[in-house]
Amino acid sequence: MLQYSSPYSLSDPLRAEYLAFAIEVSQTGGAAALPYFRASAVVQNKLTDGGFDPVTQADKAAEQIVREAINTRYSEHGIYGEEFGHEEGNGLTWVIDPIDGTRAFMSGMLHWGLLLSLFDGERPVLGVMYQPFTEELFYGDGRFAEYRRGASHVRSLQVSRRTELSDAVLATTSPRWFEGSQRAGFDSLENAVKLTNYGGDCYIYGMLAMGYLDLAADANLKPYDIQAHIPIIEGAGGIVTTFDGGNASMGGVVLASASEVLHQAALEILCR
Amino acid sequence: MLQYSSPYSLSDPLRAEYLAFAIEVSQTGGAAALPYFRASAVVQNKLTDGGFDPVTQADKAAEQIVREAINTRYSEHGIYGEEFGHEEGNGLTWVIDPIDGTRAFMSGMLHWGLLLSLFDGERPVLGVMYQPFTEELFYGDGRFAEYRRGASHVRSLQVSRRTELSDAVLATTSPRWFEGSQRAGFDSLENAVKLTNYGGDCYIYGMLAMGYLDLAADANLKPYDIQAHIPIIEGAGGIVTTFDGGNASMGGVVLASASEVLHQAALEILCR
Repeated sequence: MLQYSSPYSLSDPLRAEYLAFAIEVSQTGGAAALPYFRASAVVQNKLTDGGFDPVTQADKAAEQIVREAINTRYSEHGIYGEEFGHEEGNGLTWVIDPIDGTRAFMSGMLHWGLLLSLFDGERPVLGVMYQPFTEELFYGDGRFAEYRRGASHVRSLQVSRRTELSDAVLATTSPRWFEGSQRAGFDSLENAVKLTNYGGDCYIYGMLAMGYLDLAADANLKPYDIQAHIPIIEGAGGIVTTFDGGNASMGGVVLASASEVLHQAALEILCR
Repeated sequence: MLQYSSPYSLSDPLRAEYLAFAIEVSQTGGAAALPYFRASAVVQNKLTDGGFDPVTQADKAAEQIVREAINTRYSEHGIYGEEFGHEEGNGLTWVIDPIDGTRAFMSGMLHWGLLLSLFDGERPVLGVMYQPFTEELFYGDGRFAEYRRGASHVRSLQVSRRTELSDAVLATTSPRWFEGSQRAGFDSLENAVKLTNYGGDCYIYGMLAMGYLDLAADANLKPYDIQAHIPIIEGAGGIVTTFDGGNASMGGVVLASASEVLHQAALEILCR
C-alpha cells in the first residue's frame, strides 16, 4: 500500500535524468506487452491453457521489465506496481500500471497504455504514458509536457484552457463506476456540459493534456491509474484533484480540467 | 435517401475488382482526412474562423476524393454519402461514411475511420473500414474478411464463434442512443453478458470481426454507419441484423454477433 510521507527534495538535473529514464523504460515495458495484444486464437488458447489470460501475461511481462530496469539503475528507490506490489525505498517510489485500460486491451481496442510515474511521498514529480501499438508517448514533469509519436513527431502539450461548462467536452471511462451521490453529481455535470464521451481510460487524460477534451472524470482509480497523468496535465496547464478538491495522487474519485475556472465550476456541481 | 431495389447481379471477377478499388480509394480518402486529426490550435482556429470545424472539413475532403475516384472509374454507379447526399446510378451504389466516429475524431481519440461499401439494392456486397492514423484496414465481401496494417501485416478475420451469453463481451458506442423499450432491452442484455464496453463506433464492429468482442449493438445508425461492417462481419463468420432480425443495410437499431446461436439468444432478450 502506497502512503503519503515527507516529500523528497529533487534537483532539476536529477528530475531531467529520471524523466529520460522513465521515457526509455516505458517504451521497453510497452514493447514487452505488445506481443500479447490481439494475439491470435492459437496464442490465446496456449496462454489460457497455462492458467493465464493474455492480458495478465502482458501485464506481468511489462511490469517485470520495468521493475528490473529500476532495480538495476536506481536500487535505492521504491517501486509500487499493479501486479507485483510494493518494494520500500529511500522516499522516491516508481509507480507502475503496466496496462491501463485492460478491458480495451482484451477487446483489441486502442485506448490502453503503460503508465509510469515517480512519487516523492506527496506528489508524482513526473509521468509517462506509452501506447506501443500506436507508438504514442505522453510525458511531463508538472512544468512542461510533450507528446511524441515514433522517432520524429514531437509536439508540446497544451490544454484547451476552456472556461465555460456549456462549451466543455467531458469524458469518463464509464459512468457506472460512480456510486450514490457521486453518480448523481456526475449526471448533473453531464447535463451542464456540451457533450460527454464514454470510454477511453488513460487516453482521455492524454487528450485533455493535448487540448481536445476539457474535463475528465473517473471513479475508483488506484494511485497507478492516475499518478502519471498529473504531471503531464499540470505541465500542459491543466489541473487534477479528487472530487473534494484534494490531492489526487492516491486515486479515488478524480476530476481533471483544462482550466482552474472550469475545474471549480465542475467541482461545485459534482459536490452539490 | 437510399432505398431497396432489385439486387444487381455481380460476377466473382467484378466483385474482386470492386473490392480492390474500394480498398485503394478508402486509403486515399482516409489520407485526405488525416491532416485535420489533432490539428494544432492554430489550424483549428483558422478553420473555425472560416465557418467550418475541422471534422466537417475532414469529412468533406475525404468524401470528395472518394466520390471523384468513383465518378472517374465507375461513372455508371450511384453514390450515397453522409456529406454530399445521393447520386442515382445503374443499381449499384457506393455508400460512404467519410469519418465514422466524429466525436472521437474531434476529441483526438483513436476509434474512428472511413467506411465504404457497395450496395446492390438489397445488401452491401463488400465493405471496407480504414483508420489512416493507425493505418489499419478491415475489408470483406461476405465470403471472406481480412485485416491489414501498413504494407506488411495481413491476417484473416474470424469471429470468436462464442455461443453463451454469460461468456460474451458486449459493446455499444453509447447506451444513451437506445430509447424506450430498446433501452430496456439493452439494459437486460447488459445484465445477461459477462462484460459491456462503452464507446468505440466503427472499431467495435472491427473487433467483433477479429474475434475480440462477441456482441455489438447500436441505435440510430444510418445506412453508411453499418453497411461496410456487414460484409466484413459475415465474411468473418458473424451475423448482423436489426433488433427485429431483419436486414440491417438501412441501419436503425442493429445487433452484430459472433455466432447464430448467440445472436438468437441476444435478440430474444432485446425484444422481450
